[in-house]
Amino acid sequence: MNSLQNPLIKQLGHLKDKSRNRKKSGQFLIEGKRELSLAIKGGYKIETLLFLPDLFSKSEAKAMSKYDIDIIEISREVFQKLAHRDTTEGVIAVVNSKSHQLDDLEFYSKNPLILVAEAPEKPGNIGALLRTADAANIDAVIIANPKSDLYNPNIIRSSVGCVFTTQIAMADTSEAISFLKQFNFNIFSAILQESEPYHSQDYTLPTAIVVGTEATGLTQEWRDVATQNINIPMEGVIDSMNVSVAAGILIFEARRQRNFD
Amino acid sequence: MNSLQNPLIKQLGHLKDKSRNRKKSGQFLIEGKRELSLAIKGGYKIETLLFLPDLFSKSEAKAMSKYDIDIIEISREVFQKLAHRDTTEGVIAVVNSKSHQLDDLEFYSKNPLILVAEAPEKPGNIGALLRTADAANIDAVIIANPKSDLYNPNIIRSSVGCVFTTQIAMADTSEAISFLKQFNFNIFSAILQESEPYHSQDYTLPTAIVVGTEATGLTQEWRDVATQNINIPMEGVIDSMNVSVAAGILIFEARRQRNFD
Repeated sequence: MNSLQNPLIKQLGHLKDKSRNRKKSGQFLIEGKRELSLAIKGGYKIETLLFLPDLFSKSEAKAMSKYDIDIIEISREVFQKLAHRDTTEGVIAVVNSKSHQLDDLEFYSKNPLILVAEAPEKPGNIGALLRTADAANIDAVIIANPKSDLYNPNIIRSSVGCVFTTQIAMADTSEAISFLKQFNFNIFSAILQESEPYHSQDYTLPTAIVVGTEATGLTQEWRDVATQNINIPMEGVIDSMNVSVAAGILIFEARRQRNFD
Repeated sequence: MNSLQNPLIKQLGHLKDKSRNRKKSGQFLIEGKRELSLAIKGGYKIETLLFLPDLFSKSEAKAMSKYDIDIIEISREVFQKLAHRDTTEGVIAVVNSKSHQLDDLEFYSKNPLILVAEAPEKPGNIGALLRTADAANIDAVIIANPKSDLYNPNIIRSSVGCVFTTQIAMADTSEAISFLKQFNFNIFSAILQESEPYHSQDYTLPTAIVVGTEATGLTQEWRDVATQNINIPMEGVIDSMNVSVAAGILIFEARRQRNFD
């Protein structure tokens, strides 16, 4: 497929650029071998594989999926239109979205550990949060009051594919709170004021660690419902930390208390 | 000053855009009230203050510094050329660089805690590292084998001014190692292979925590010289973490062991 005027290529360009089109179609684009193989591992279903023959062979394309999928050779011009990155490996896939409802979450451990991030905005921060979630092998991430869709190319990229390796639910804050209460999670809301130092708390029972935005913190609901509000003691001039760094510190304190089991 | 053709304005444009010009002149630009007041607090000397009268008053400009400095009114066109950010407060300063030699570092505590970052590349990561360094109030940051100058507008911005609140030295890795040995620091090099879990170590003596790049990790020198190589146990699919998140976890484990004193 060589023409930018081809209706399918136009449609895929919109999938890359527009959250609305991703939502409407239930599909999105994945670029790069690692991201694609992580998505397959994570149970995502590939619909179509597009490849640039200079960089990626048809036999490689066939080997990438066990399913009977469409494999389409594209021109460099078309590839450049659809690719999000400069350096890439010549392969782009059209993939079906998953459902990210709270009810979809499954817990296999007796004392699950969850990260809740409320209204995170920067794709780079969301990506770093998801990498931490993967590295710590926590049970799930809940994005409360989400501001963007999960399949934004910048989120996929900055998560280096960890968006596909971790269970993720998106929900309103009030729904997320009901869910956590229903399953008897201890809720630790990261809040500077009227809170206890994070390392004084016990995170070995079912635990949800909740972080807000750098600009405005958490909404009042999370303060009210918390088992305990917690803070990271800060002693600098500014007292502000990157949200993904703060979440990493809290999650790994929980992992440490659990002896990394 | 209203003309983009004005030689001073041209020269300041180069200060913003070119590391080479910053190094040659020993000056750089700071934009925004918070960043500027943190720089003043950090002992930086302002040479010239440029302000856009729509957004910033001359009396505010005068109040910003106790020194006898040049205060220059500029047009919106000139302001837009010199400004790095979209949202801003109408003030830009020409500021003298500081010396960032190892010999400039001063330690006030008996058991200093230092972060060493080798060859960090992304301004966003450097900014997040410096925010963590400020929040943890560690004694110094050493950037070993630096890849960029410290006064890159993206570093100033992503550090939210923490580049001015923390002692920072830049040096070759070999010089940094000699320095740490001379002052009897325990050196903990973050390395995945042949290393101990980070939480099994004692960080209460003079401690340097050393992190490398996400792509290639630390150079061999840091592995060889380490008091102990350490790792953050990872149990995910990918085993990769954002470098500023990893540094945050290690630094705050050290702070926890020190009871946040």
